[in-house]
Amino acid sequence: MKLAIVGTGMIGGAVARAARTRQVASHITGVEPNGDHAATALEFGVVDSIATDVPTDADFIVLCCPSDQVAGWVVKLKDRAVPICDVGSVKAPIITELRRLLDGAFPNHFVPSHPIAGSEKTGPAHAPSDLFDGRAVALTPVAESDPSTVAQVEKFWQALGAHVLNLEAAEHDELLAVTSHLPHYLAFAFMLQVEHEALALAGGGFSDFTRIAASNPEMWWRIFKMNQGALLGGLGEFEANLARLREALENEDDELGLDLLNKAARRRNEL
Amino acid sequence: MKLAIVGTGMIGGAVARAARTRQVASHITGVEPNGDHAATALEFGVVDSIATDVPTDADFIVLCCPSDQVAGWVVKLKDRAVPICDVGSVKAPIITELRRLLDGAFPNHFVPSHPIAGSEKTGPAHAPSDLFDGRAVALTPVAESDPSTVAQVEKFWQALGAHVLNLEAAEHDELLAVTSHLPHYLAFAFMLQVEHEALALAGGGFSDFTRIAASNPEMWWRIFKMNQGALLGGLGEFEANLARLREALENEDDELGLDLLNKAARRRNEL
Repeated sequence: MKLAIVGTGMIGGAVARAARTRQVASHITGVEPNGDHAATALEFGVVDSIATDVPTDADFIVLCCPSDQVAGWVVKLKDRAVPICDVGSVKAPIITELRRLLDGAFPNHFVPSHPIAGSEKTGPAHAPSDLFDGRAVALTPVAESDPSTVAQVEKFWQALGAHVLNLEAAEHDELLAVTSHLPHYLAFAFMLQVEHEALALAGGGFSDFTRIAASNPEMWWRIFKMNQGALLGGLGEFEANLARLREALENEDDELGLDLLNKAARRRNEL
Repeated sequence: MKLAIVGTGMIGGAVARAARTRQVASHITGVEPNGDHAATALEFGVVDSIATDVPTDADFIVLCCPSDQVAGWVVKLKDRAVPICDVGSVKAPIITELRRLLDGAFPNHFVPSHPIAGSEKTGPAHAPSDLFDGRAVALTPVAESDPSTVAQVEKFWQALGAHVLNLEAAEHDELLAVTSHLPHYLAFAFMLQVEHEALALAGGGFSDFTRIAASNPEMWWRIFKMNQGALLGGLGEFEANLARLREALENEDDELGLDLLNKAARRRNEL
């Protein structure tokens, strides 16, 4: 299989490395406008070649560009008769934008997908080949999606070590607001109050809790804006729980405080 | 050295294992009222013997009991002429309580200490022998503290692999409110809104961000109450930053939003 990967940052690089390690592709082309990423991806052997556009003989295309560029790329590739998928963290806005650009039509060979795996690191040099091992990949096909293309995309992610979940785009965005976007938002907000001198007293808990605040600010600001509604909804729920816990603490209400902490710990232990 | 450890839970167990691995102690006694912990600590060879009170021939005593029991133990051991330290996450309330119990006096051989290391796991079976490797231990001696005892306590923690920081108890509690207590508080609050179905879409970021919410609820509720003032202060600052970020998101104010996320990421990258 000739694989084309648009965007050879950390995620695109990880797709390439996993595809190579697991012998999913015979040739991997990176489509990369960023000169540094392109040079690094070649130098580290992450891709076999670099191009400015998707090669015409590509058999499978993975869009690892920023989420707000996915719809534009799909429009550009709408007449290629090969499976196309993406890795965007927000799905419904991409689908809506695509329908808008194509006057309501939807290319049946594009299957919106999202691997639930990432890193606070950026660039192809930091791309691990096992990023998708045992991870979930959400597919959010639409009514027009071609079932055999959906099956091919499913098989591709499974070949990279992941398991696949099918769900509605809106449901995906609601769930991801809670499991990913809100934690990043809270970690960023929290770090704003951490003065340099406090870092000397930071332990493993602090380090893990704040790791995602080292993530790419531009990428995350884009995601926050794309999933604004669901994120603000999740934030409202968080603020309500924070107020309940604050009430318990201010009143030294052991029953309420312990009830809340026990409920939280039980839920975390389900993971 | 004959070491006595009061409380052989996860932290007490880790002190014992580190002391054994690094040949700091020739005999380790665990003072443990919890029958399960006592049996496990003996079975796993974490301690050499179990007692209901601190042996009279102990050369060094580490109090790894819950923070609100430290002052009581120090009173009980006030006439033992050997170094005593503790591992409590909040320091000023222990010192205040001790002075109250002793009518203003302070035993000069007790050095309040706090290793900045922990785990969401409980019990001696999960006690790692390298928990303190490269970690900070805060000492908060008072005016009455005997300098040679402070030096012995410092040497003890260094022998266990840690580096030692000396600071005022109140300063310690303010800093720890931010680096440890608030992150736990926020992680617990966040988990309250995570429904079971969402866990299938949880990735590594979620897992790290919420790990500390699996911590012992009773222990943390006690810590939150003991450091109530500093924690509520830290919480207020967090809420103010959350409101600024919310304003940026609601107004899609790229300049403010990116400025806040960049500042947060820069701070995290200092770690």
